[in-house]
Amino acid sequence: MSTEARRVRIDLAYDGTEFCGWQLQPGRRTVQGVLERALAELHGGERVALRAAGRTDAGVHAHGQVADGRVRLRHDDGNLVYALRRLLPPDVRPIELRTVPDGFHSRKHARSKTYHYRVDRSAHGDPFAARYALHHPTALDDACIEQALALLPGRHDWTGFTTLRCDKEDPVRELTAARMTRRSGGETCFEFEGQGFLRYMVRNVVGTLLEIGKRRMPVEQVTEILERHDPLLAGPTAAPHGLHLMRVRYADDD
Amino acid sequence: MSTEARRVRIDLAYDGTEFCGWQLQPGRRTVQGVLERALAELHGGERVALRAAGRTDAGVHAHGQVADGRVRLRHDDGNLVYALRRLLPPDVRPIELRTVPDGFHSRKHARSKTYHYRVDRSAHGDPFAARYALHHPTALDDACIEQALALLPGRHDWTGFTTLRCDKEDPVRELTAARMTRRSGGETCFEFEGQGFLRYMVRNVVGTLLEIGKRRMPVEQVTEILERHDPLLAGPTAAPHGLHLMRVRYADDD
Repeated sequence: MSTEARRVRIDLAYDGTEFCGWQLQPGRRTVQGVLERALAELHGGERVALRAAGRTDAGVHAHGQVADGRVRLRHDDGNLVYALRRLLPPDVRPIELRTVPDGFHSRKHARSKTYHYRVDRSAHGDPFAARYALHHPTALDDACIEQALALLPGRHDWTGFTTLRCDKEDPVRELTAARMTRRSGGETCFEFEGQGFLRYMVRNVVGTLLEIGKRRMPVEQVTEILERHDPLLAGPTAAPHGLHLMRVRYADDD
Repeated sequence: MSTEARRVRIDLAYDGTEFCGWQLQPGRRTVQGVLERALAELHGGERVALRAAGRTDAGVHAHGQVADGRVRLRHDDGNLVYALRRLLPPDVRPIELRTVPDGFHSRKHARSKTYHYRVDRSAHGDPFAARYALHHPTALDDACIEQALALLPGRHDWTGFTTLRCDKEDPVRELTAARMTRRSGGETCFEFEGQGFLRYMVRNVVGTLLEIGKRRMPVEQVTEILERHDPLLAGPTAAPHGLHLMRVRYADDD
């Protein structure tokens, strides 16, 4: 095809339950893999490499993930998103697709991301939340959790909330918001907004907050973890299925 | 066990996706089968036969199904529901359990039932609604649907909205409410309330309403079907996964 290449931004939602995360892995069903296969189909087999704002882990969901890649197709944006939707399964859905300047980079240009972590606190366990929220029927001290949440925002070295695996990435990130909201049906939602997140960071923060809520850790443990950069002080990594990437914001958004 | 038998009412919710409906079928995963197996486990292998207010079909969901059966256990109601929850998978959850008079019959004594049918009208198809709502991205004339809905309530012979298979059941039922509500995220919910429903009745009504919304059938088709008792005049049976049994009401409810 002699069509000129252009970069497109794809805003998409996916139910992460049946995916081994975003990132391409040979022999495994990943969001990137499924999307790239659909794009390759439209390109007569040629690969279109995609990158995403957040490389969500296995089981993690997305409501507003942003990906980008260079396509070489005659379709206009509307026809392209329509063609992609027809090729994709019900658990990964492109919401919007638009042509962007070639310099656009979904991850590097992201200004902030919002993650939610849903906890189903009903005694019985809502079957309709089973894939999307951690079931935690035992009591939690909300006041303690609120106090711990208030200690989180700011520019910190988040090493204590990542895994022990060495990582060359700069562990300093600014967290701009950390709050808890109670929803109907006995659900609690933890909301985090920040310029960037390290791997497992939200899930390790939530795991620690739950330990604090169960009074197995003091509220000040959060400060301790942030100051001592020691993951051994943090709570366990909360299960992936409660985590949702809600939104990615860019400089040119309203 | 020499414990005295008592009848218990179990209010439960289930995600119908992975079930072949409520009713026991050899070699298939059904809600009744999974519940009875858990109860048998508590009774040392002895079967406890359950009956339910609504025998939901394969793929249909329940938020407030009511079942009843006679148990012979020392557990009080609170301990029994706790024990059951521990034995049951995440997609079928007992919400409440209480001892009722032995004459209680979850189906025969039901005074009314409420069903919802969810339709996802977004262009992209919400992946989080894929299991719980019919995806219908093409345009629907809401005004026509509203007019047709207004023709439904009342005491009718609903033969025209069941299947062609002969059924000895009395086909006369009173539908007390039929409405449509628009929800956030491009979702439309059809709500039906009535004293009882025939098999496939709600799904056939919805299938007909969608045909009317697409202007493939006139609004008056609804009256025609009700008067001529002819299922061939109705629209196709809407897919099961949009259907939700929401509530069952009894005479002694508030």
